[in-house]
Amino acid sequence: MSAAPLPSFTDEPLSLSRQAAAAPEQPISRLMADALDNPKLISLAAGFVDEHSLPCELVKKHVGLLMRDPSEGPRALQYGLAAGDLELRQRIARRYFADAWEQRSEAMLLSTGSNQLLHLISECLMEAGDIVLCAAPTYFVYLAVLRDLGVEAVGVDCDAQGMCPEALQENLDDLTAQGKRQRVKILYLVPYFDNPAGATMPAERREAILEVLRREADGGPPIALLADNAYRDLRYDGQDVPCFLDLGAEPRWTIETGTFSKNLSPGIRVGWGVFPEPLHTALLRRKSVIDFGSPHLSQCLVREILADDELDQHLCDVLRPAYRRKRDAMVEACERWLRPIDGVQFENPGGGLYVWLKVPAPLVTSAGSPLWEACIRNGVLYVPGEFCFASQGAAVQANTMRLSFGVQSENRIAEGIKLLAEAVKAELV
Amino acid sequence: MSAAPLPSFTDEPLSLSRQAAAAPEQPISRLMADALDNPKLISLAAGFVDEHSLPCELVKKHVGLLMRDPSEGPRALQYGLAAGDLELRQRIARRYFADAWEQRSEAMLLSTGSNQLLHLISECLMEAGDIVLCAAPTYFVYLAVLRDLGVEAVGVDCDAQGMCPEALQENLDDLTAQGKRQRVKILYLVPYFDNPAGATMPAERREAILEVLRREADGGPPIALLADNAYRDLRYDGQDVPCFLDLGAEPRWTIETGTFSKNLSPGIRVGWGVFPEPLHTALLRRKSVIDFGSPHLSQCLVREILADDELDQHLCDVLRPAYRRKRDAMVEACERWLRPIDGVQFENPGGGLYVWLKVPAPLVTSAGSPLWEACIRNGVLYVPGEFCFASQGAAVQANTMRLSFGVQSENRIAEGIKLLAEAVKAELV
Repeated sequence: MSAAPLPSFTDEPLSLSRQAAAAPEQPISRLMADALDNPKLISLAAGFVDEHSLPCELVKKHVGLLMRDPSEGPRALQYGLAAGDLELRQRIARRYFADAWEQRSEAMLLSTGSNQLLHLISECLMEAGDIVLCAAPTYFVYLAVLRDLGVEAVGVDCDAQGMCPEALQENLDDLTAQGKRQRVKILYLVPYFDNPAGATMPAERREAILEVLRREADGGPPIALLADNAYRDLRYDGQDVPCFLDLGAEPRWTIETGTFSKNLSPGIRVGWGVFPEPLHTALLRRKSVIDFGSPHLSQCLVREILADDELDQHLCDVLRPAYRRKRDAMVEACERWLRPIDGVQFENPGGGLYVWLKVPAPLVTSAGSPLWEACIRNGVLYVPGEFCFASQGAAVQANTMRLSFGVQSENRIAEGIKLLAEAVKAELV
Repeated sequence: MSAAPLPSFTDEPLSLSRQAAAAPEQPISRLMADALDNPKLISLAAGFVDEHSLPCELVKKHVGLLMRDPSEGPRALQYGLAAGDLELRQRIARRYFADAWEQRSEAMLLSTGSNQLLHLISECLMEAGDIVLCAAPTYFVYLAVLRDLGVEAVGVDCDAQGMCPEALQENLDDLTAQGKRQRVKILYLVPYFDNPAGATMPAERREAILEVLRREADGGPPIALLADNAYRDLRYDGQDVPCFLDLGAEPRWTIETGTFSKNLSPGIRVGWGVFPEPLHTALLRRKSVIDFGSPHLSQCLVREILADDELDQHLCDVLRPAYRRKRDAMVEACERWLRPIDGVQFENPGGGLYVWLKVPAPLVTSAGSPLWEACIRNGVLYVPGEFCFASQGAAVQANTMRLSFGVQSENRIAEGIKLLAEAVKAELV
């Protein structure tokens, strides 16, 4: 063999940090890109919102009013506070918390969508090797955030009311037995119309979860309860449920987050969170370093829309009726085309954007599976359930999928479910 | 001594990650908060923009037009691509690059202000212990980003044309001699009207810097040239200079970033960057994980403003005349009140938002110094120069300060400089 050539650097690209080199592509990004690229495909995958109910009139009106105001206009176009607009924080606190709203607004930070907060919170509370407990299934974008940080996710069994407190306690006892309890830093929940399962936790279930966390915090380091309330306002049936803080959760270890992406507009992109100290200060410092605060114009716009009950009018008059019809269209189509297939399971979600479907157990829904390919051929796209399960804890349910009724029209939802049912039947033969 | 009590967890707060626990408060956040809290103080510290030239009319008009358009309105309020609006990327590429604009737009990502990119780039290219070369003085917020990542910053001597190529080469040779050359990952420059020194690199100086980087990339792993063009459009005298890519910088290791925060509005908050592979893909993945893409409404708004030369009109008719007057007011006041003091130095910046002032060497400008306290008593605030120096390389110039003419009126600028000069004279006695 000849001698190895001397190293040549003239074509060498920049080298990446270990973290950047290891970052996988987000499955959701690909699915979203597919959906944007291929308008013929009926995408029941992307978590986009309904286009026709986006608040164009409200945005036009309030940006117009703001910009006409000689002091508010320039203020909105200037840098804001790193914590976010104070008056908006107060309005959010009054809207979502039954009491102590002033305290809540002081403990609040605004962000560019609540996704940014999920990432920052995780970074500020955890090291690689720490553990997050989450529902099985859970929000898959959060699982990607955790992978990115080298944090382990452990799935906890759920039923139609969300995470089971007994299963949570069992998981904690197991982790204690393994000497890993000290590594458990966060319990992540989507307590309203969760993504992907559509379940909402009733007050009693929330109290049972709090009881588990209280016992844990008495006997060891507290576990942060991270309640992601993204879908709270998207309720189509029944009464609102109080959030954890209003149910007496200990503020010392409770984090509530929310967003105006689902109930108003993801293009405006304002998220919020309420945090205990010292996390609040740590997040504020981090936010100052990484982006200097979220866009002030977006915050001022949401602030003005919240001023006069216009968000509630929009929810009552436009958004909830539109989504209720779509939800009904999806559930009816599922009843008609899928229910007759032996082994199919789904619930009617009382809100949110998703129906969680189980197809008969021999079938597998994963990307690239025969069923997946058959659906693409038929012209319908779903999110494979496998994306929504942590790698540890409760087993992956390989026969599940997330169906979103947010984007498509009622007709296309019905058509999509029919095409899906045909693919399922064909694969079962 | 009695036995230690058993550990009690009932009042224990959530514990922070090492990174979060170590994060110091950003000095700029405190200065900005001071400026916002205390309207009587003449703040020549905050890097805010001029309030009266913010484009309220343009924003009102284009949000109105967008929201009236039945397809563009809902699109603007929907999620966008993680990379950012394609048409806006194309318009930015056409605006700032003389050729290859299509390639540039494909290699571009949009962000929430360019600060977000500075952070993401640094995270994707470096590990703790890596090294960034930067000007002495340099943009202090970027120094905070580097501290946060555990990256070492090494300051390189500058003159009125920006970083000196000979000093750069010397620093690199020193680092090579110390066996640290492989840890040098980024050369950070603010080549137009830099923050804080106000210097712009002429084309020849840029070419000399490129020559150093080319030699380094031939003999070793390439160093990323990170050119932060935040102030390029804020030129009040003379002709524009081509950016590094247009001067033939190797795209494989060149990064150009820019923002619409300074030339349009920091409240809209749209930044951009052009990146080589594999960095571009890594950043895109990271952006998808951490915030899912920046606000689409902001991007659509900037896209529309860029469509019809309206940004250039705004720059020519409003922004440049307003800042030119302010710059003149500051320079004239400095000539009148400060120049007569023996040992004072400053240059007339041809653009940007800052005058870099040296007071006589025995004086120290640091926060809490007698001069600082005297200025606060007199009612004027500046950014101490010490914040703008890396902890390694070129020595801290303790007798410097950054003076911003962005926010205050011409009268208040003149008054502020007079108060500052009085404090300097009093401290010299």
